[in-house]
Amino acid sequence: MSLKVYFDLMSQPARAVVLFCKVNKIPFTPKPIALRKYEQQSEEYKRINPFQKVPTIQDGDFKLTESVAILQYLAEKYNVPDHWYPKDLQARSKVREYMAWQHMNTRMHCATVFIHEVILPRATGTPPDEDELKQHVNTMHTTLTAMEDVFLKDTPYLCGDKISIADLLGICEVEQVVASGRVVTAGRPTLQTWTDRVKTDLAPHFDEVHSLMHKLRDRSKKN
Amino acid sequence: MSLKVYFDLMSQPARAVVLFCKVNKIPFTPKPIALRKYEQQSEEYKRINPFQKVPTIQDGDFKLTESVAILQYLAEKYNVPDHWYPKDLQARSKVREYMAWQHMNTRMHCATVFIHEVILPRATGTPPDEDELKQHVNTMHTTLTAMEDVFLKDTPYLCGDKISIADLLGICEVEQVVASGRVVTAGRPTLQTWTDRVKTDLAPHFDEVHSLMHKLRDRSKKN
Ligand SMILES: N[C@@H](CCC(=O)N[C@@H](CS)C(=O)NCC(=O)O)C(=O)O
Ligand SMILES: N[C@@H](CCC(=O)N[C@@H](CS)C(=O)NCC(=O)O)C(=O)O
Repeated sequence: MSLKVYFDLMSQPARAVVLFCKVNKIPFTPKPIALRKYEQQSEEYKRINPFQKVPTIQDGDFKLTESVAILQYLAEKYNVPDHWYPKDLQARSKVREYMAWQHMNTRMHCATVFIHEVILPRATGTPPDEDELKQHVNTMHTTLTAMEDVFLKDTPYLCGDKISIADLLGICEVEQVVASGRVVTAGRPTLQTWTDRVKTDLAPHFDEVHSLMHKLRDRSKKN
Repeated sequence: MSLKVYFDLMSQPARAVVLFCKVNKIPFTPKPIALRKYEQQSEEYKRINPFQKVPTIQDGDFKLTESVAILQYLAEKYNVPDHWYPKDLQARSKVREYMAWQHMNTRMHCATVFIHEVILPRATGTPPDEDELKQHVNTMHTTLTAMEDVFLKDTPYLCGDKISIADLLGICEVEQVVASGRVVTAGRPTLQTWTDRVKTDLAPHFDEVHSLMHKLRDRSKKN
């Protein structure tokens, strides 16, 4: 298979890329990179991705990093339904607007809560500092409110009437937070309806790609 | 003029958009939003950009935020030379890779140094905490090294043989740091050559759009 996808299912942007390939039946050679074993830090992987992060794709000789660039590349290269990354200039621009916005918002703030609530406690064996965590959770909620009040204000999906690559990136970030058992959509009917809708559209691949995250969630619930 | 551009020349991403229009002779109605007067926080501007930041464009009824999305929109809508945002899929993907990468790198880390070295000392009347500033400067240098070692490794511009919208975003972030009098390219011949090259390509518009930043720089030098 000429298309190789380097990923770890613990990584939000990597899951978005894997999901996109599965939902659109794009054949690829899976190249798992276990972040917990620091496989991204090998000299071999550095030649694939100098930033030593996932995801990366390699298509023939062509290497590409950054989930946003990868999703656009795959959508344009393969004959996927137009709604994923519309040809209409205004519709496409709206998808790009969310994808630019999310870096310092959904991506940064949901990941920060996940790191403080799941990763650091496991690494250090000590529970999170409650005050610090609360601040991070509040900042995340500002982002979730913006998702509802701006991007989901008038439309069922983040950037219009149909699902796009923006929703893929969005759902993978939001779903990262549930790993601690946190119900991220509590008191947020708009976000809840959107997550339900997107997960239904992505079934059965959504659960498949999130099985590890859901295992973490179910384990946290029991505690 | 149907195209309106909302900007403040103190804003890196806003300057990139204004520069793109000027260099490509795209006619627009300038709509200055003075951040120092908090004009972005008005109810009127909130209807243009719900995030109350610059830049924003309005083209007829169509409103668009996020510099990365705006530059792609303008490059695709107007008949600009191909090198700005190439039609070739791989070349275009490389431009998008930098534009995705920069949010948490050039954009975040150069802006952080600027805020700690220029904005906060003016707002509070106290000089920056030296240790904290040093940390931010070190983080910025990690980003500048990545610009040189990855994006400028084999090519004269960030994403290939010709100038693209990625270089516009890059140069406006790097030039923000000089406002404190800091010589950001010191000991960095690759970065120095690239900044010289890009500024030459953008003359005379580069200096015109950066006159305010350069006034700050010249004032800092005198101290
Ligand atoms: N902006 C990048 C982010 C990539 C990223 O941060 N990946 C993380 C996992 S979510 C990673 O590989 N981290 C490993 C490391 O930093 O060592 C994208 O969207 O692809
Ligand atoms: N990701 C946005 C960033 C926009 C942004 O942060 N703009 C700043 C100026 S550089 C702003 O308007 N700040 C005003 C405020 O936050 O009140 C873009 O690239 O357009």
